[in-house]
Amino acid sequence: MSKKIYVTGLGPGLYEHMTEAAKNSLKDADVIVGYKTYIDLIKDLIGDKEVLSSGMRKEIDRCQDCLDLAEQGKTVTLVSSGDAGVYGMAGIMLEIVEKQKSDVEVVVVPGISAANAAASTLGAPLMHDYCVISLSDLMTDWEMIKKRLRCAGEGDFIVTLYNPKSKGRPDNIVEAQKILLEYKAPETPVGIVRNAKRANESYVITTLEKMCDEEIDMFSMVVIGNSKTYITEDHLKMITPRGYQL
Amino acid sequence: MSKKIYVTGLGPGLYEHMTEAAKNSLKDADVIVGYKTYIDLIKDLIGDKEVLSSGMRKEIDRCQDCLDLAEQGKTVTLVSSGDAGVYGMAGIMLEIVEKQKSDVEVVVVPGISAANAAASTLGAPLMHDYCVISLSDLMTDWEMIKKRLRCAGEGDFIVTLYNPKSKGRPDNIVEAQKILLEYKAPETPVGIVRNAKRANESYVITTLEKMCDEEIDMFSMVVIGNSKTYITEDHLKMITPRGYQL
Repeated sequence: MSKKIYVTGLGPGLYEHMTEAAKNSLKDADVIVGYKTYIDLIKDLIGDKEVLSSGMRKEIDRCQDCLDLAEQGKTVTLVSSGDAGVYGMAGIMLEIVEKQKSDVEVVVVPGISAANAAASTLGAPLMHDYCVISLSDLMTDWEMIKKRLRCAGEGDFIVTLYNPKSKGRPDNIVEAQKILLEYKAPETPVGIVRNAKRANESYVITTLEKMCDEEIDMFSMVVIGNSKTYITEDHLKMITPRGYQL
Repeated sequence: MSKKIYVTGLGPGLYEHMTEAAKNSLKDADVIVGYKTYIDLIKDLIGDKEVLSSGMRKEIDRCQDCLDLAEQGKTVTLVSSGDAGVYGMAGIMLEIVEKQKSDVEVVVVPGISAANAAASTLGAPLMHDYCVISLSDLMTDWEMIKKRLRCAGEGDFIVTLYNPKSKGRPDNIVEAQKILLEYKAPETPVGIVRNAKRANESYVITTLEKMCDEEIDMFSMVVIGNSKTYITEDHLKMITPRGYQL
């Protein structure tokens, strides 16, 4: 019996940014499990395989399903968008296997993370030390998130924000902006990418001072530069210098 | 005339972790340019294409070559390992194009970064807010790097270290450990992955207190957990909980 679960990062969405290992994990699967939106992303790759899709916030149930199926001897592939190991399904799947002392093998297949996908669209904003912070306070204390924003500002890190805004918490992004403005200049470049490396991608390059005037939603990634980041003359790219003397 | 430069992230090394877009950028190229070691990684994919490979620390010359070739109408693909936008070639290529006011189009093709590759091998250490810091002080003031380590410690971030050690700077990692120990518990889990997702990958899971007893070199990625990261009972994985109530 195989008793194997792949937790696969599908990358941002477009098939061309998916790895061969991710595709192979779909081929290898007896059952493919995932959040409905992500299953839809890969429907052309699934063929007539068994699929178990579920709605948002069903992460624990989904992992339990995976474990039950794998315990029955099925090879299961649990899909996540971006990289499964960055705010994705890899952690909770491993936690459940560990907690239930199962001997099922879990293989994490890395994918292009939303941060890297968005950065490539913006030019080269992540060329120096950076922080990745989620503004979702569903499972993290908001005070802790604010503290991290302050530390990121203090350290002149480039800051990549996941989950910058949703209907339930429209003001976190405004508060984050306010905190970062205590440390970073108002004209610090900011890139906002919606649906990074998906079919309907769009992006805008603005500044820290003006970023909240732009449309930001749960499909957006926000990348805030460090003190050396600049915007190109044509206003189409942002670049953080690595430090080469040109 | 095409006047196009792809800056392509090849991913960690194994072909299966390369994206289709990265492979397509190699196919589309008239000339492939890169650091010799990375050209060697993809030699089976190059066929009989024109190749311009160069040694370490020739980044500026390499980008100038790319620009000159593209200006002549050739499609050029500049390769970088991991993600080209994370301490890779994307930034400097865009900087040179901008500085020389060239109208060559630069397309950044994202790849699986070394951080994401290493994390997938270790389990799920990057499941919460994290920092990426390079310990190389070749182009960054060491005082700035130390400040960032302090900020990362203060904010209880997971910390991923690039360029943790080389012959020229064997002690930076020891100093980094010392700084982080001011903020993080000695038993904080640490994963060290050598040659992440390459043919000769190896890894070890240890603690912040003991990490410097392990072999660390320029092919290593070091991932230091946050206050909630734990090591599985079999000592084979490290997991940072996202915050689900299991």
